[in-house]
Amino acid sequence: MKLYSYFRSSTSYRTRIAMNLKGLEYDYVAVNLAQDEQLNAAFKSINPQGLVPVLQSDDLLLYQSPAILEWLEEVYPENPLLPKDAIGRMHVRAISAMIGCDMHPINNRRILQYLRNELSVDEDDVMVWCNRWISEGFEALETRLAEDKNRGKFCYGNHPTFADCYLIPQVSSARRFKVDLNPYPNIVEIDTYCRKLKAFADADPMMQPDAPKA
Amino acid sequence: MKLYSYFRSSTSYRTRIAMNLKGLEYDYVAVNLAQDEQLNAAFKSINPQGLVPVLQSDDLLLYQSPAILEWLEEVYPENPLLPKDAIGRMHVRAISAMIGCDMHPINNRRILQYLRNELSVDEDDVMVWCNRWISEGFEALETRLAEDKNRGKFCYGNHPTFADCYLIPQVSSARRFKVDLNPYPNIVEIDTYCRKLKAFADADPMMQPDAPKA
Repeated sequence: MKLYSYFRSSTSYRTRIAMNLKGLEYDYVAVNLAQDEQLNAAFKSINPQGLVPVLQSDDLLLYQSPAILEWLEEVYPENPLLPKDAIGRMHVRAISAMIGCDMHPINNRRILQYLRNELSVDEDDVMVWCNRWISEGFEALETRLAEDKNRGKFCYGNHPTFADCYLIPQVSSARRFKVDLNPYPNIVEIDTYCRKLKAFADADPMMQPDAPKA
Repeated sequence: MKLYSYFRSSTSYRTRIAMNLKGLEYDYVAVNLAQDEQLNAAFKSINPQGLVPVLQSDDLLLYQSPAILEWLEEVYPENPLLPKDAIGRMHVRAISAMIGCDMHPINNRRILQYLRNELSVDEDDVMVWCNRWISEGFEALETRLAEDKNRGKFCYGNHPTFADCYLIPQVSSARRFKVDLNPYPNIVEIDTYCRKLKAFADADPMMQPDAPKA
């Protein structure tokens, strides 16, 4: 398999975690978002939406990380990333959607570039923007995790799920935007635990071939 | 079952379509977003994220429409809203995510209110903002639908799927923001077909008990 990815893209990062957790190998194809390579005709023929990640499996081009993760779970059921029961799966998918719909897309590079370039929002206010949506989302998620009897070492139970694949990149993003994480002890605890695991560590942006050299 | 909903909320609308397509009855509980009722302590005890929809099924509170739809599909498998094959399901979920992650949340009420109130963006530029993200998403989706041999009366094949549940509310939203739909003939054709069906028509915002009287 081939993964079209950008080291710092949260959606690529969550896909890398899922593939690592399932023990699936892939070739890394870097798409440089900083140089808008995703908007080139060559890449748009692979994904008309001009977004990473895209996962190529034989002739099949898979796009949109929520759909890629579900496909991986269906086609490679070993090391499952969803609980066995429907209620558990609902919780895991809901946490994933809290991050994947209501937090990440609002702070996406294309949105921030629009704020800067089209609405002349200065850098301080761009940071305030990011902080607002991340804090709002983390506050709700922290409340859920604190109340949830199913919360274990991971967001749901003691096995990693989709929810952790979504959460860890969002925490990285929060740190980049200097969000104060002190109000979210459950999130920090899960993040600390996950980062020690090889599947998560290997997926880290700075470990990717297209990351800037230290 | 009980659905906490707001007539014009796209995420409530997509959930209503899915429930109607499955022939599931529910009591409608209106949450007035225009009066910020979703932020009241009473509603936040139901969903700490302060967002509709929430589906109550016995003691279970289901939140986040992508997770609610998957749960409905698992627990009420009749009138399936996902294709039988993994590749088909990937396409349907990917179209759903194009809308549910990359279009709808950017034009959500809370974001537009922030643009107006915190960044002093005037109403014309709010419309330009909405048009930008809807057009960008529809352009990519139209390309996919035009190329896809699986495109039938609906987004995928000749049975409605999650993708149609997401698409029709997004088209309503596009019309409200005066997006020119002429460049998207496949989208318009699917929309026209779906709106004639009772499950879609009954879910229309203006048919809900909390819609303003004509």
